[in-house]
Amino acid sequence: MKLHTSRGAVSPARVQFFLAEKGIEIECAQVNLMKGEHKTPEYRAISPNGRSPALQLDDGRVICETSAICRYIEALQPEPPLCGTTPVERAHIEMCDRMMEFELMMPMAMTFRHTFPAMKALEDQVPEFGEKQRGVARKRAVRLDKQLVTQDYIAGSEFSIADITAWCSFRFFRVAGFEITDETPHLKAWFARIKARPAAAVAFS
Amino acid sequence: MKLHTSRGAVSPARVQFFLAEKGIEIECAQVNLMKGEHKTPEYRAISPNGRSPALQLDDGRVICETSAICRYIEALQPEPPLCGTTPVERAHIEMCDRMMEFELMMPMAMTFRHTFPAMKALEDQVPEFGEKQRGVARKRAVRLDKQLVTQDYIAGSEFSIADITAWCSFRFFRVAGFEITDETPHLKAWFARIKARPAAAVAFS
Repeated sequence: MKLHTSRGAVSPARVQFFLAEKGIEIECAQVNLMKGEHKTPEYRAISPNGRSPALQLDDGRVICETSAICRYIEALQPEPPLCGTTPVERAHIEMCDRMMEFELMMPMAMTFRHTFPAMKALEDQVPEFGEKQRGVARKRAVRLDKQLVTQDYIAGSEFSIADITAWCSFRFFRVAGFEITDETPHLKAWFARIKARPAAAVAFS
Repeated sequence: MKLHTSRGAVSPARVQFFLAEKGIEIECAQVNLMKGEHKTPEYRAISPNGRSPALQLDDGRVICETSAICRYIEALQPEPPLCGTTPVERAHIEMCDRMMEFELMMPMAMTFRHTFPAMKALEDQVPEFGEKQRGVARKRAVRLDKQLVTQDYIAGSEFSIADITAWCSFRFFRVAGFEITDETPHLKAWFARIKARPAAAVAFS
């Protein structure tokens, strides 16, 4: 297996974090997004939609999409479980992970893409939309802070893939103004708790 | 189990289609989105983020998020498989399904929410963004047409959850101008092929 990944970007970091939690080391090829390497014919021959990360299997098949890659890794190596073990646990964690993707990471990404000056070259920006999405993401962060009053992790009492998705989002999108402040103390404590995991240090390295 | 669903909306239709393919009948409660019933305190007590559909389990736990609901149903009743059976098949189908969600359904939904007059009451519209997303969705539909030259279904030779996601998107978002034309004949043939399945008739009924 070979992982086509991009050092420092949010979704590649989610996969790196996941792999590190599993204790798996894997051959990696770097795809430089700012240089547009994901749009070259060579890379599109591997990943037709030109996205990073992409997991290339030994038979040449390619799995794109962060959560499909992570769930595949979980199937190959179930321990430690990061996506739940029973059907209802799996469903609950998938729900939490998707909420972090759709309600938190996505509006943060939209803010970043549509308002961040360096993204102008890659994105057909609509700053008005980006600013509205900033409000959506901030509102969701406040809701998350309230959830974290009574639970240590996003999906409940156990660390899971949903923490990885949310943590990598906060870590990466602070460049777009999503720094966690003292106004959300439970979120701040959770961020520090996740940051203390050895695998978190691997995510963006 | 009880499904909180909204007749005629795109994600509830995906779950209805999935259940009908499995031959499962389930108790349903209707949540009227245009009347804002998903934002009431009563409904938020069931589904905290105020989204439909939501699957309420017999112990009171609730699973939100369409694909988490569908994968849970697949775990309870594996036949016929709609999400793959081996780890690599599951990963491939999850990838295809997510591509349909992120690259097709999402830009169609953004177009609908940000440009459709009736959505003004529910959405803080940015029409410029909506129109740009129209282009993104149309480009993806053309790419899908090319894929369907050599394969009958979105994930390859077998019908899967990815067809359900894409079909419900085309079916619903034609209200926002995404009617399939003769310019994409393979997509048109695929749409008719999916429409011919008895379960498709159940999706929006």
